[in-house]
Amino acid sequence: MAIKVIGFDADDTLWINENYFREGEKKFCALMHAYLSEEKTMTLLYDNEMNTLDIYGFGIKGFVLSMIETASQIMKTELDNITIDSIVTIGKEMLHKPVELFEGVEQTLQALQHSYRLIVVTKGDLLDQERKLEKSGITHYFHHVEVMSNKHEADYLKLIKHLDIDPSSFLMVGNSLRSDILPVTKIGGKAVYVPYDITWQHETVDTHDLHEIEYATIDKLPDLINLL
Amino acid sequence: MAIKVIGFDADDTLWINENYFREGEKKFCALMHAYLSEEKTMTLLYDNEMNTLDIYGFGIKGFVLSMIETASQIMKTELDNITIDSIVTIGKEMLHKPVELFEGVEQTLQALQHSYRLIVVTKGDLLDQERKLEKSGITHYFHHVEVMSNKHEADYLKLIKHLDIDPSSFLMVGNSLRSDILPVTKIGGKAVYVPYDITWQHETVDTHDLHEIEYATIDKLPDLINLL
Repeated sequence: MAIKVIGFDADDTLWINENYFREGEKKFCALMHAYLSEEKTMTLLYDNEMNTLDIYGFGIKGFVLSMIETASQIMKTELDNITIDSIVTIGKEMLHKPVELFEGVEQTLQALQHSYRLIVVTKGDLLDQERKLEKSGITHYFHHVEVMSNKHEADYLKLIKHLDIDPSSFLMVGNSLRSDILPVTKIGGKAVYVPYDITWQHETVDTHDLHEIEYATIDKLPDLINLL
Repeated sequence: MAIKVIGFDADDTLWINENYFREGEKKFCALMHAYLSEEKTMTLLYDNEMNTLDIYGFGIKGFVLSMIETASQIMKTELDNITIDSIVTIGKEMLHKPVELFEGVEQTLQALQHSYRLIVVTKGDLLDQERKLEKSGITHYFHHVEVMSNKHEADYLKLIKHLDIDPSSFLMVGNSLRSDILPVTKIGGKAVYVPYDITWQHETVDTHDLHEIEYATIDKLPDLINLL
C-alpha cells in the first residue's frame, strides 16, 4: 500500500540529543572520579537507570534522579551538598540546551510535506519534548506530534489506530533499531533507519532480532527524498 | 449547543492524588525538622517548585528534585546520604501508590458513556498518568486520554481542534478552578467544578478571576448525572 503518513523520531533523528546525555555522564563520572573508575561508575549508573525505567521513564529528570542515587551508593557517608548541587546543575543545563537540527532536516520536511502527512513520534518527557519542538522551529511541517511513554508494538498499534490508516501506509524514520524500526516492521509498517554516531546502550538490539525484518538504511535524512 | 464530549480531570477528580503529595511533604519536613521549621521548609520547597516548573513541569519527579534542592539549601554542608536516600524513597513510594477511585466514579462513567464521548484530560507526567489510568481499571469508559504538559487556554483550544468539535459542545469536569474551570469557560466551553478537600497552592485562584464566568458546582461526581 502507498505510504500516507511518515513518522519521524525526534531525538538523534531530527536533532542532536544523545551527545548531551554523554556530556552529562562525563561530568558525573568526573564528580565520582576520586571514589570509583569511570567504567564502574557508568555501569552502576546504567543499572540504576534500568532499575527505575518502569517508574521514571525516559528523559532528563529520571537521568538526574539516577545520578543522585548512584552518587549516594558510591560516596556513601561522604556524599555532600556540593556533589548534589553539581548533579542537579547537570540536569538543569541539559534542560536548557539549544536544539541543533541535523543538516538537511528542513529541506527534507519541505520536500515531503505536500505528498505525505508528516508527524513526530517521540518518547520521553512530555514537557521537554515540547520544549525542544518549540525551539526547533519546524513544528509547522507536522500535522501532529505524538509523545509516547514508550515505543513498543502496542504503542505503535495505538497510534496507527488513532491515525485511522492501515499499518502498511505508515513509514517510520528513526535512529533506533529497537524503538523506531523493529516494532514498526513487526506490526506491518515500513521503516527507514538513519543511524546516528552515538546510541544509548538501552537502544541497541541483538543483531539476531534483525533477521527476517525488512527496512531501508540511509546515511542522512535528505536521502529519504530520493528513496521515496 | 448540546454537549458532545465530557472531559474529566483525573487527579483529585477521579482518584485521590494530592493527599500523597501532602504525605510526601510531611515526611520531607520531618527530615528537615532539626534545621528549619515546617512552615519555612514548606515555603522554600514551594518556591523551588515554582522556580523549576517551566523546566521540570508537574509531577512526582520534579517534586523529588525540588525536595533535593531544598534539602541542600537548608542543610548545606550537613546534607548527607541518609537524607538524600530518604527523599528519593519518598518519591519512589509515591510512584507506587495505589489508585483509589472516589465513590461513584464508575457509576457516573457508566451512566454517561452512551450519551457522551468521555475523555480524560490530565496534566503531569505522561508515564505516571498512564500508570494510574491502567491501575484505575476505568480506561475502557474513555474514548481518548489526553495528557497535557499544562492546562492553559491554548492547550484546551488545541484539544478542541483535535476533537473537531465546537467549544460549546465541550464540558470539562474537574477539581481545579485554575486548570479545569477558568481556561475552559474562557474559550467558550462549559465547566463543572467538583471541589476536593485539598488543593495545591499553585492551583488556587484569585476569587476576582471568577467574576463573570459561568460554571456549575457539584459536591461529588455522581451529581453530574442529574445535572446533565
